[in-house]
Amino acid sequence: MSVYVVAFMKPAEGKIEEVGAGLKELAAAVKENEPGCIQYDVIFAKEHGSYTVFEVYKDMEAVAAHKEAAHVKEAFAQAAESLADPPMIAVVDKIAGFHRH
Amino acid sequence: MSVYVVAFMKPAEGKIEEVGAGLKELAAAVKENEPGCIQYDVIFAKEHGSYTVFEVYKDMEAVAAHKEAAHVKEAFAQAAESLADPPMIAVVDKIAGFHRH
Repeated sequence: MSVYVVAFMKPAEGKIEEVGAGLKELAAAVKENEPGCIQYDVIFAKEHGSYTVFEVYKDMEAVAAHKEAAHVKEAFAQAAESLADPPMIAVVDKIAGFHRH
Repeated sequence: MSVYVVAFMKPAEGKIEEVGAGLKELAAAVKENEPGCIQYDVIFAKEHGSYTVFEVYKDMEAVAAHKEAAHVKEAFAQAAESLADPPMIAVVDKIAGFHRH
């Protein structure tokens, strides 16, 4: 059963571009290295100056593999100084909805 | 070009179930009545007791149709007393990511 994860990041003053570039790199590395990740959407909310990553994994093993992946650990280490607060990351429940893709 | 919208809602004390039920109904009505909405994911973050709706529309006309739709106006009127704060709704930019569906 798919596992949904939402990550929320607020860049520090003047760091919006840098955090965005890091997230683009991370998205490419996740696509390349994590077959268990079936959806990864990096979203920028201009009005709020924040990034939200909406992630869907095949199962909890794929979530664990993501957490342990070197490219993920590197990205978070790199982003640490560029974020106003630590990222908020949570496994969430999808309670309703549809895709017409 | 697809338009991405994120809506964030924090239920008032004791209203989590009620808001969730309202969002399930809204998701069904959007699917039924809005062909321009191509993705609608209603997400509940238990740790935070909040709902995030991740929405994708065919174009800005579809976003306008959504805002004007009776089922949307009714849902927000109904939810007004059950939310701790007004919902935060923003058109956002998808800067990176992939779907393997």
